[in-house]
Amino acid sequence: MKRVHKSGEQSSPRDSAEPVSELTTNRLSVYLRCLNVLDAAGVRTVSSQALAEQFHLNAAQIRKDLAYFGEFGVRGVGYYVKELRRHLRQILGIDRGVSVAIMGAGNLGLALADYPGFRDEGFEIVAMFDTAREKIGHRSRAGVPIHDLRDLRKVVRRERIRIAVIAVPAGAAQSVVNTVAAAGIRAILNFSPGTVKVPPGVKLKSMDLTVSLESLSFFLAQADPTT
Amino acid sequence: MKRVHKSGEQSSPRDSAEPVSELTTNRLSVYLRCLNVLDAAGVRTVSSQALAEQFHLNAAQIRKDLAYFGEFGVRGVGYYVKELRRHLRQILGIDRGVSVAIMGAGNLGLALADYPGFRDEGFEIVAMFDTAREKIGHRSRAGVPIHDLRDLRKVVRRERIRIAVIAVPAGAAQSVVNTVAAAGIRAILNFSPGTVKVPPGVKLKSMDLTVSLESLSFFLAQADPTT
Repeated sequence: MKRVHKSGEQSSPRDSAEPVSELTTNRLSVYLRCLNVLDAAGVRTVSSQALAEQFHLNAAQIRKDLAYFGEFGVRGVGYYVKELRRHLRQILGIDRGVSVAIMGAGNLGLALADYPGFRDEGFEIVAMFDTAREKIGHRSRAGVPIHDLRDLRKVVRRERIRIAVIAVPAGAAQSVVNTVAAAGIRAILNFSPGTVKVPPGVKLKSMDLTVSLESLSFFLAQADPTT
Repeated sequence: MKRVHKSGEQSSPRDSAEPVSELTTNRLSVYLRCLNVLDAAGVRTVSSQALAEQFHLNAAQIRKDLAYFGEFGVRGVGYYVKELRRHLRQILGIDRGVSVAIMGAGNLGLALADYPGFRDEGFEIVAMFDTAREKIGHRSRAGVPIHDLRDLRKVVRRERIRIAVIAVPAGAAQSVVNTVAAAGIRAILNFSPGTVKVPPGVKLKSMDLTVSLESLSFFLAQADPTT
């Protein structure tokens, strides 16, 4: 994966240009989703132009994004769907499967545990964690076991869990994040509202649902202040 | 709300600088969340410095963001918590409550319908919509009614629904988004994976859970390519 350090500044990984990196990986994810559709439909090759038209994307952006990670296109052919799909899965680190834990077995945690899209994309929700005694030992509808939070470190090691999803109430979020980081997990997807801090070397992505709704509400208030 | 058009370019609303606007409103949401905590704790005034320290934020950024919308700070006092909270709710357009519909009454839709944070922040999930006959007429645990998708336009008008949350399978997303836009809803929060298109004048925010996990997986693959 050295290929991504293109600038020659070995000491300055791409993470320093965080927003770009984040937007690029998000687009790679979208391309992968499109290629999955094409592959399932039996399409063998696709041009950046056809990909762009079919999925409402930007052809020049596709070529630029993919060229950044290597030369995948073939002149006169475009991209081989299966091959590009395999490359993207490799770049995104999901080619060998990634084990994920859900922290919190409430409504949201249970819905996330059974979210059907994850497994198709190489993610496997292998465990949930909670502190409520009446939940521990049970399973989600899809069969994900609910463990005692106190067993986190043990289960993380045994199941090789690499990503934790935080779905606990806001008041418990920071404490759970600390526990998760202390157990050696270095990538966290946070669904709890409010700010949480992570130690250096741990990557945090926050999805505050209320923040998203407020951003939409702000748009409506500006677009039409009288209603 | 004219105050937000500061540039003098009346013909170019802030939407053209979308990423800035989006980041700013996201920060306003975070400040509001912090002020809620302080207000609940009985704190009456707070300085930008104290706010920053307590919630791991940036004091200069707070002052800049808030000054953009008016002069809320008082020299030697800081901000009045209740007053600033009221102003922020007004700026975000949630002071009079915003009615929200959830499209799709599956696991995710049901979890979102009962997400406890929404109502506290001025959002009310007033309806869910589905096409499955066995779901129509039932309610979520918290009591949100599940309507027939065919009644969308009627219910939107009656309940003054202004935001729709898309929680249907990927294959149905674009068709549901089209139906929602045709019913007059101009703000959409999309949880379905893949790309969807909205007509001009409709604001779309996408929260693809798989994309978020892939961005974390990409971070792990880069940080430690050998594992």
